[in-house]
Amino acid sequence: MTRTVLESKTKTVVIGFDEPFCVIGERINPTGRKKLAAELEAGDFSTVEKDALEQVACGAMVLDVNAGVVYNSNPDPNVTEPPLMRRMIELVQGLVDVPLCIDSSVPGALEAGLEAAEGRPLLNSVTGEEERLEAILPLVKKYNVPVVAISNDDTGISEDPDVRFAVARKIVERAADYGIPAHDIVVDPLVMPIGAMATAGKQVFALVRRLREELGVNTTCGASNISFGLPNRHGINAAFLPMAIAAGMTSAIMNPVRVQEMEAIRAANLLMNHDPNGAEWIRFARIHEAVQGGQPFAEAAKAAAAGGGRGGREGRRRRRA
Amino acid sequence: MTRTVLESKTKTVVIGFDEPFCVIGERINPTGRKKLAAELEAGDFSTVEKDALEQVACGAMVLDVNAGVVYNSNPDPNVTEPPLMRRMIELVQGLVDVPLCIDSSVPGALEAGLEAAEGRPLLNSVTGEEERLEAILPLVKKYNVPVVAISNDDTGISEDPDVRFAVARKIVERAADYGIPAHDIVVDPLVMPIGAMATAGKQVFALVRRLREELGVNTTCGASNISFGLPNRHGINAAFLPMAIAAGMTSAIMNPVRVQEMEAIRAANLLMNHDPNGAEWIRFARIHEAVQGGQPFAEAAKAAAAGGGRGGREGRRRRRA
Repeated sequence: MTRTVLESKTKTVVIGFDEPFCVIGERINPTGRKKLAAELEAGDFSTVEKDALEQVACGAMVLDVNAGVVYNSNPDPNVTEPPLMRRMIELVQGLVDVPLCIDSSVPGALEAGLEAAEGRPLLNSVTGEEERLEAILPLVKKYNVPVVAISNDDTGISEDPDVRFAVARKIVERAADYGIPAHDIVVDPLVMPIGAMATAGKQVFALVRRLREELGVNTTCGASNISFGLPNRHGINAAFLPMAIAAGMTSAIMNPVRVQEMEAIRAANLLMNHDPNGAEWIRFARIHEAVQGGQPFAEAAKAAAAGGGRGGREGRRRRRA
Repeated sequence: MTRTVLESKTKTVVIGFDEPFCVIGERINPTGRKKLAAELEAGDFSTVEKDALEQVACGAMVLDVNAGVVYNSNPDPNVTEPPLMRRMIELVQGLVDVPLCIDSSVPGALEAGLEAAEGRPLLNSVTGEEERLEAILPLVKKYNVPVVAISNDDTGISEDPDVRFAVARKIVERAADYGIPAHDIVVDPLVMPIGAMATAGKQVFALVRRLREELGVNTTCGASNISFGLPNRHGINAAFLPMAIAAGMTSAIMNPVRVQEMEAIRAANLLMNHDPNGAEWIRFARIHEAVQGGQPFAEAAKAAAAGGGRGGREGRRRRRA
């Protein structure tokens, strides 16, 4: 059985075929968040702190940390990202006890993160691009960490799922040359927007099944990409995730502060027999009830965590059948 | 490709591997609805009329009609059910144009329904019980209709999915002896409550796949049974349905007047590439927005149907991304 082991200083999380779906919180990422980017340049980490605490309370089992800010004062990310990554990693692991996912396109920032992270973080990411393979796989080997492998290469992102599978296979084989085992590769088969490509869902479900059966690897994805450009995105995401889980997907990089998506994942865990005695579902149902009663999800989740599983202020309300 | 063709007087619905998921509305059923049972005994069909219209507006493609009332005045269903079934079928097909599913444990009521129904209704149901096979299959043959086959037999409902598969195979083989093709058998593999049997979800997903690949049959289920006894049942149902659809389930007998379940099915249709250009999803998103704004689902759906796809009173509100 494929088991990808992640660790913080005190906590172990296993991504695996027989494990609950691993939710990797995506919020700590200044890309496309101008306000956060400006805060980081000004040395203000309050949003990072809030995002770390909220995501873990809402059910993130791993936190992605991306330091991809383009400073106004210095536009070279090779200079600015490594120290920022180090600082963010230190900050986040001082606040929460989950393993981290070190996310950057800058190899120097990845190495800075690897030096700063306690335990066994997930590295995000390698691709099938030659330059990237040569830059990242030695880091993966040196620090003995698992890595996200994105199935694009020097020719770009193929719309043909067979090509994306072949890229994933190439990365797994190249990693093996470095002595990196398949169970430390978490493949992202790339989720296309269903609004742009009508076969995007079926492609991913079939790819996940093949990656699991033929390469024996765990899988992840940027889940919300599936619904890009369509109305009621949360409704699409909340069906996509259980379908991907049923096909064998074992993790996703996503926003865990969304109750509809997290409800779908908790229910899918229950339905996959990855929630002994339904304990997590029952705990979540109390939080869900508080949310239905008007409380924000993050607040209800934090109250439940603090109160030992009761839904905070709403926790004593009659449970609906 | 397996295609089960149902017809009303004017409308054809195909249950099939390459078709949108077929929602069979379950509401017209006095079993466990004391108020409805009393109304029917008193000759009051107003709830039946309301249920027929609401279910179709909300997205039911077929309506199940069950006349299983135990009258206070006459406790013999062999006497009371056939005329009631006939009357209900005539009433419902006068109101809505979808095909019907004639649902009874009383063979005489099934035949009364078959006589009254226009087009090509679905018969619900045969089981692997010898007496039932001998009573129902001749009706299926005589009226040339498709039939729901429930995978229990004279030994009851097995907890072993291999036994349930064997029962389904037996029914398909016995039907073939009557000249009934496999594409006119819609197998219900029986969904157990996940709260009572932790493997219930995985059992169904695996069974659906086998039924499809090895017997070439369409499948259905009483979807809400999966969540029996657990809190936040709609959340479980709304993950179960997309997962079952991803596994190959092609229909369910369910309550279509529940927005969360119908949202999950519409999204699953989109993700399975059974919603050309996302037209149904976009139409549903407008209804969903009206529901989020406080309008009851059935009302919003009816308004959208009447208004040519706009979400009624809420239809002009800004669409959220």
